[in-house]
Amino acid sequence: MSTSINLAVIPGDGIGQEVVAQGLKVLTAVLPQDVKLETRQYDLGAQRWHRTGETLPDAELEALKHHDAILLGAIGDPSVPSGVLERGLLLKLRFAFDHFINLRPSKLFPNTATPLAGRPDIDFVVVREGTEGPYTGNGGSLRTGTPAEVATEVSVNTAYGVERVVRDAYERANSRPRKKLTLVHKNNVLVYAGHMWKNIFDKVGQEYPEVTTDYLHVDAATIFFVTQPERFDVIVTDNLFGDILTDLAAAVTGGIGLAASGNINPTGAFPSMFEPVHGSAPDIAGTGKADPTATILSVALLLRHLGYEAEAVRIEDAVCADLAERDGTFRSTDAIGDALAARVAG
Amino acid sequence: MSTSINLAVIPGDGIGQEVVAQGLKVLTAVLPQDVKLETRQYDLGAQRWHRTGETLPDAELEALKHHDAILLGAIGDPSVPSGVLERGLLLKLRFAFDHFINLRPSKLFPNTATPLAGRPDIDFVVVREGTEGPYTGNGGSLRTGTPAEVATEVSVNTAYGVERVVRDAYERANSRPRKKLTLVHKNNVLVYAGHMWKNIFDKVGQEYPEVTTDYLHVDAATIFFVTQPERFDVIVTDNLFGDILTDLAAAVTGGIGLAASGNINPTGAFPSMFEPVHGSAPDIAGTGKADPTATILSVALLLRHLGYEAEAVRIEDAVCADLAERDGTFRSTDAIGDALAARVAG
Ligand SMILES: CC(C)[C@H](C(=O)O)[C@@H](O)C(=O)O
Ligand SMILES: CC(C)[C@H](C(=O)O)[C@@H](O)C(=O)O
Repeated sequence: MSTSINLAVIPGDGIGQEVVAQGLKVLTAVLPQDVKLETRQYDLGAQRWHRTGETLPDAELEALKHHDAILLGAIGDPSVPSGVLERGLLLKLRFAFDHFINLRPSKLFPNTATPLAGRPDIDFVVVREGTEGPYTGNGGSLRTGTPAEVATEVSVNTAYGVERVVRDAYERANSRPRKKLTLVHKNNVLVYAGHMWKNIFDKVGQEYPEVTTDYLHVDAATIFFVTQPERFDVIVTDNLFGDILTDLAAAVTGGIGLAASGNINPTGAFPSMFEPVHGSAPDIAGTGKADPTATILSVALLLRHLGYEAEAVRIEDAVCADLAERDGTFRSTDAIGDALAARVAG
Repeated sequence: MSTSINLAVIPGDGIGQEVVAQGLKVLTAVLPQDVKLETRQYDLGAQRWHRTGETLPDAELEALKHHDAILLGAIGDPSVPSGVLERGLLLKLRFAFDHFINLRPSKLFPNTATPLAGRPDIDFVVVREGTEGPYTGNGGSLRTGTPAEVATEVSVNTAYGVERVVRDAYERANSRPRKKLTLVHKNNVLVYAGHMWKNIFDKVGQEYPEVTTDYLHVDAATIFFVTQPERFDVIVTDNLFGDILTDLAAAVTGGIGLAASGNINPTGAFPSMFEPVHGSAPDIAGTGKADPTATILSVALLLRHLGYEAEAVRIEDAVCADLAERDGTFRSTDAIGDALAARVAG
């Protein structure tokens, strides 16, 4: 734990700007007086791309390396062709900084509107692999745009990459009261990758005799997410399945407005990056309707990663208390940020 | 519409046997007296594999070609390594018979236990591509079992394959009252396949000016499945996304015990195959607890495919009426089959 934090901030597009402002507000409020917070904003995203054609120039990638962590709002805009900013900026950061742990906790907070009847007790964390699978950009297209086109996408999986995320997931499961770890894949169809994942999962599991393990195909996992989400404690899965499952998890725990995430490189070789799971929501940008809670909870993950455990817990407790007292009347992005900043400071 | 049906029956594993028996019971009951039903059972699945090491020998594949349709129960058993029967039997049939339309309707029937609060009005159909995507078996594993292993899975997509399923989906959307078609993919990450899907979707759409179209990333689609499922009418998507979404659809519409499917080759070059979406459920095999309704609804899809529209509707109406009258007391597999057979005959 350092006594200064040198933070890179990438507000990005749409509501990204608005929610990041609230995240910084709460971060400033929660930090002890003697911790020096330095921030540098990076102008990256749709506007930059329209202006200069750049997504993430080398100089900025290099500069980003020297921060302790990155706080990111949201990336993407309908005016930019799909994939340009996602691949050229967001995924480029995750890959360049080797964010192999994409950590996405899911908790049904009090008083939140889950679409599930009966309000099951949901409290699990998805450890999504962040640097492999179908996200590597391998693949291509032949005879593009013609009736004879062939397009491929290659999911690349390595024992190196799978073992490190599986090990991280066992560590997390082992440190939680229920000590349960579920592997989600589709090894009855994706037999090459699926069997490798399962073999490594079983092998590493021998080092964690206290962890109870389970395996589910991804299709079956979605069923349990809505019928029996309380069965999950820690889930480990590949990049694409993790993407799908964590949006579903956000939906059943009261919405994408509350879902936080960390793109973590536990080795410390590169800065880790924290961002809400939601997108840039251009339809509500500028209206003050965006819920900054997901970003503020991502700030808690950021603090925990940097060793500020007490401050992380203060934010999480504040969110919990704030949600418990919400009475359904509309509060603006700013008002929610103010309320949470007041709580963590008080 | 022929006056005889020459049906191949593959009961398969676990509860497959039990539910197929009920499907045949209802099929026999619903068919007009003058339609001759011939069935031939094929002994394929886990037991056959244990006995002979065979999954689907050429002779049987050849024989299956000469049926009007196939009714399949379920394939898979924990005693067989994951993937052996799925790839060697179930997917082999789908690929050999070019079942490019994997049709999976989802409807929230009265009186069924959806996990969703508020019982939204759900009535959509997923048109899942059945012969491409990550299901082709392309890929491999290098240095298998070592710390240097690399495993790949290749999603193969062709304009030929995508256009035919997209066109089928537009036809279906165009013939439904709401005329709405949603493409689900992940074209911000899987840019090669995703852009081809989207381009073909847009191009074919020009021929269907009355159909309203929408595009959703697969992760966002799972959110709407639980928060706003009434927004969907027809969905078209790739093989893997369709697999995931249809299990989730089954869960929100009252469970996998009600979800029917057809693996359809609309050209008629090969027999189409109808099966419940659920698996072989070895844990409840032989207990009489399996719900045969999904198989019976699959028989309705089979009849519709063969031109027996009135009979298909009779089955669907019977299921609807039966569910409306269920009072929560336990009924065995056999009892449900008897009740539905009585209704369609009466
Ligand atoms: C925007 C997109 C590239 C991204 C992903 O697919 O990982 C997003 O959906 C997420 O989950 O963070
Ligand atoms: C058993 C498995 C190969 C199959 C699939 O993935 O298609 C099943 O999940 C289904 O949805 O029919």
